Amino acid sequence: MNATPSSTTLTFTTEQRLDDGVLERRFTLNEVPGILWTPPGAASAPVPLLLLGHPGGQDRMYPRLAGRARRAAADGFASATIEGPGTGDRPRDADADRARADLRAARAAGEPVTDDIVDRLVLPLVDQAVPEWRSALDTLLAQPGIRGPVGYSGGVIAVGVRLAVVEPRIVAAGLFAGSFVPRATLDEARRVTVPLHVLLQWDDEGNDRQAALDLFDAFGSAEKTLQANLGGHTGVPAFAAADAARFFARHLR
Amino acid sequence: MNATPSSTTLTFTTEQRLDDGVLERRFTLNEVPGILWTPPGAASAPVPLLLLGHPGGQDRMYPRLAGRARRAAADGFASATIEGPGTGDRPRDADADRARADLRAARAAGEPVTDDIVDRLVLPLVDQAVPEWRSALDTLLAQPGIRGPVGYSGGVIAVGVRLAVVEPRIVAAGLFAGSFVPRATLDEARRVTVPLHVLLQWDDEGNDRQAALDLFDAFGSAEKTLQANLGGHTGVPAFAAADAARFFARHLR
Repeated sequence: MNATPSSTTLTFTTEQRLDDGVLERRFTLNEVPGILWTPPGAASAPVPLLLLGHPGGQDRMYPRLAGRARRAAADGFASATIEGPGTGDRPRDADADRARADLRAARAAGEPVTDDIVDRLVLPLVDQAVPEWRSALDTLLAQPGIRGPVGYSGGVIAVGVRLAVVEPRIVAAGLFAGSFVPRATLDEARRVTVPLHVLLQWDDEGNDRQAALDLFDAFGSAEKTLQANLGGHTGVPAFAAADAARFFARHLR
Repeated sequence: MNATPSSTTLTFTTEQRLDDGVLERRFTLNEVPGILWTPPGAASAPVPLLLLGHPGGQDRMYPRLAGRARRAAADGFASATIEGPGTGDRPRDADADRARADLRAARAAGEPVTDDIVDRLVLPLVDQAVPEWRSALDTLLAQPGIRGPVGYSGGVIAVGVRLAVVEPRIVAAGLFAGSFVPRATLDEARRVTVPLHVLLQWDDEGNDRQAALDLFDAFGSAEKTLQANLGGHTGVPAFAAADAARFFARHLR
């Protein structure tokens, strides 16, 4: 079920012009729902593309995704997101649900979240999501108004790390250290060489701060920045979002 | 010898207009040398003030200090620095020299730098430098063209921490985590409440990364940002300097 489809079918389902002139189009790509935002003027002069990662639940995440997309458009970039495996309206996965239940049980019992739980929770997601992002990239880069270079922004951090390693069209990644880091991801991090901007919420309830620091240390990139801010998982300050946007402006223009 | 002077004598010794219109004036303030930079136009509309900290050796540090001063002027701020106790042309201190010799000996022997050495190296410096900065602040804020609010930028980090605790005119601090952190400074950090932007060079040869992370964790401020970048002590990237400048633009304007 994780194989990259040999042919892709892109269908635009809805289209609206946001008040700042950004064109927002929802699509499905081989039954994976997604959203594409393009800035005014992209039709005549193709623009770079920013992939917007998220923890799953594209509709639940919509307000924040649209905010990031508008900022990207203001900087002259198209942006796109796709629904994660097993989240939103996509069919759930029994193994992932079991891993999530084990995670909840460990937390409720005050026990540590084991490497085994993290692996079962995250690695199958990475294995499935990364080919889907790459397939989306093939299709989106073929659309009028969009060209490279490509950046990846956001979570799930293990997905971003794998993409940064295997997808040469991604030239810069802005990662959000707000989810579990499998041991295998720590190893993969050493092979990342693109410029990185890593956001960490210092008091993220559900996050292991030391794991995030170890991951940052492991990245092989010659340019890497960790920006840690006070606050919980959803409390990224506006100025931190602006700093992250400037990182992409430096690397995608 | 560490008492704040009851009266201060400010003498401007040289004056030059830099090519971007910034007025640079060297001064002595009770025999402490310093430099004041004011942006063009400050004479008619007084501007905020940024104190530029450094590790000591104002002339050796001049190129970098002048760069920071020009950036501050471009953002609409005056800036000033003073020579550190026992550095540059100021009389050396026998105790500080002994602590530095002990530090070098420990390093040469591959031994850890003890808390005792750090305390002897840094705490007397803090005790002497902080009243000198406060005295400079009294005098500089009385100059035409300069008003508050005031920011402190740079190292020595223990000096910046003490100043942020005791000097109410300082409303924001951008600290450089590139020098030793005495245990007492870690305790003081909990009493800091102003917005903070802390720069850390991830591979700083002479710096204890964990001590810097512990210090960041200890700060009591509701807004605090740690920005860590790859590289050694002197390798702060240009974009990190720009982010730090934006921090002050947010808080001093």
